[in-house]
Amino acid sequence: LELRNLTRAMIDRLDSAGYGEVRTPSVEYERSMPGSELGPEPAYRLIDEHGDSLVLRSDMTLPIARIATTRYSGQHGPLRLCYLARSWRRVKRLSGEPREILQLGGELIGHDPIEASSEVLGLLGDILSATGLRDWRVAIGHAGVAPQMLEAARLDPERGSLGLAALDSGNISELKALLEDVEAPGVGGSLADALAKRFDLSLDGLEGLDSFASGGVPAVVELRETLAALPGDLQARTIADFSLRPKLGYYEGIIFEVYDPEVGRALGGGGRYDRLMRELGRETTAIGFALDTDLVHAAVAGEQRGEGRA
Amino acid sequence: LELRNLTRAMIDRLDSAGYGEVRTPSVEYERSMPGSELGPEPAYRLIDEHGDSLVLRSDMTLPIARIATTRYSGQHGPLRLCYLARSWRRVKRLSGEPREILQLGGELIGHDPIEASSEVLGLLGDILSATGLRDWRVAIGHAGVAPQMLEAARLDPERGSLGLAALDSGNISELKALLEDVEAPGVGGSLADALAKRFDLSLDGLEGLDSFASGGVPAVVELRETLAALPGDLQARTIADFSLRPKLGYYEGIIFEVYDPEVGRALGGGGRYDRLMRELGRETTAIGFALDTDLVHAAVAGEQRGEGRA
Repeated sequence: LELRNLTRAMIDRLDSAGYGEVRTPSVEYERSMPGSELGPEPAYRLIDEHGDSLVLRSDMTLPIARIATTRYSGQHGPLRLCYLARSWRRVKRLSGEPREILQLGGELIGHDPIEASSEVLGLLGDILSATGLRDWRVAIGHAGVAPQMLEAARLDPERGSLGLAALDSGNISELKALLEDVEAPGVGGSLADALAKRFDLSLDGLEGLDSFASGGVPAVVELRETLAALPGDLQARTIADFSLRPKLGYYEGIIFEVYDPEVGRALGGGGRYDRLMRELGRETTAIGFALDTDLVHAAVAGEQRGEGRA
Repeated sequence: LELRNLTRAMIDRLDSAGYGEVRTPSVEYERSMPGSELGPEPAYRLIDEHGDSLVLRSDMTLPIARIATTRYSGQHGPLRLCYLARSWRRVKRLSGEPREILQLGGELIGHDPIEASSEVLGLLGDILSATGLRDWRVAIGHAGVAPQMLEAARLDPERGSLGLAALDSGNISELKALLEDVEAPGVGGSLADALAKRFDLSLDGLEGLDSFASGGVPAVVELRETLAALPGDLQARTIADFSLRPKLGYYEGIIFEVYDPEVGRALGGGGRYDRLMRELGRETTAIGFALDTDLVHAAVAGEQRGEGRA
């Protein structure tokens, strides 16, 4: 499948689901960007012919959030927007990662949080199915799980932030060394194990989560409620992942990442960003996702080669 | 017609004609760009996180010409490539012109010049027809016409370059003031009139050109030969335009621009760029075109509104 046809199939799904395609400029005035703690730091700064300072956008969620608080601020009811657009990221020298990525994404703003998560994750699943990708999985977590569990365990703040840092860097052995001897509040067992917990819903359904949800950590309760509302075929692809941490500063609440065994990195992901909307001046809920079309293409091509070999 | 469907219809034509879609990075190392006398000066310079100097590409012909001399340098026979890609241009403050344009284009490298012009201009016509645009016209000229006519008239060099400058800036009254009293070599009449000559082929066919072609100016002979080889339906849309001047430094030989009465600027254009290929180290012929998809979209929308009124 060619990249062109792949992206067409994907955006057609968004279109059918009522998501209106938007375009925004690649280059924006730096002064119009929100604070860097909220989003990815722009990797490329430019000076235009009038001496104005510009940046090359590093993602599409920020520009769309801004549109939602300006151009569409008077609209009643949920706002459904989508895009197929390039963004530019900072890269490590010789890492082979591209500076420029072509992302496809959707954003749902101003809708009941549980229903919105279900709609957006369901749509993400439809889009991945439309690509013909076979073995993809989605890991779903909640940005509040780890901080809330650490807080409930009443650790001293330094130990708590070391634990969070270990989780953020994916260093599970460090996490265990730090928190193996702490009991997970409300559920028992080691806190390190609880923080790193992953449940394959295709094997155990939601049952594995129940004991944790009964522990009363609000983020776990919200995560369980969100997972329970997902379409069944998507649940069968889902890993509930307590260890998932937000990769971008504006995510809070539900967060997720998409994987395929053919590609060593997440194909994409997303999450809730109510806080970003609030900082931009609109009190509302918001959730969105983005897929790296080149990685999806690589995964599809890899699976097809695999079938050829089999 | 939505922009998305419009660009799909256009790129599908290129695809059916055997033009392979290519993508190149938006951001390139400045040191890998050819000299600025050959192409549009990049308007936006960036410094990346390692201190390397980068530029935001200002068109797609340069990157494709480079691909043709590197990645495809071993290929035999004509090379047909196309793109749908953004480029970034310098803009005048408050002009309302966009920094960023989404261009669709095709390039044909290494083919007989007359056949290549006929193929590329014919394809450009097919693409414009595929958009549903009704009233478009194409002006076709030759970069050598004005310099060769001025040279044949044996003007003193200063007067010659003033004449060329007047033509470049579209200042026909200045051109007349300068060259009204000079006879056009070989054909008679005023040189100013000859340089500003435009023939509507839908009215007079190629006959109007014949007296000028008999004057022996090589560029006029080549222009006539090129026009004679065009498909008939395209000839009916064509203005042979001696006053057309290359807008980009790398064009030489046949050049052209597309217009529609709904839009006050050229929707796109193109030309031969053998010299650029030569400077990049490959001795070959090359011709290409690019259309600004937003302007084409505006023209289509404008014509449809006009039909609504009629």
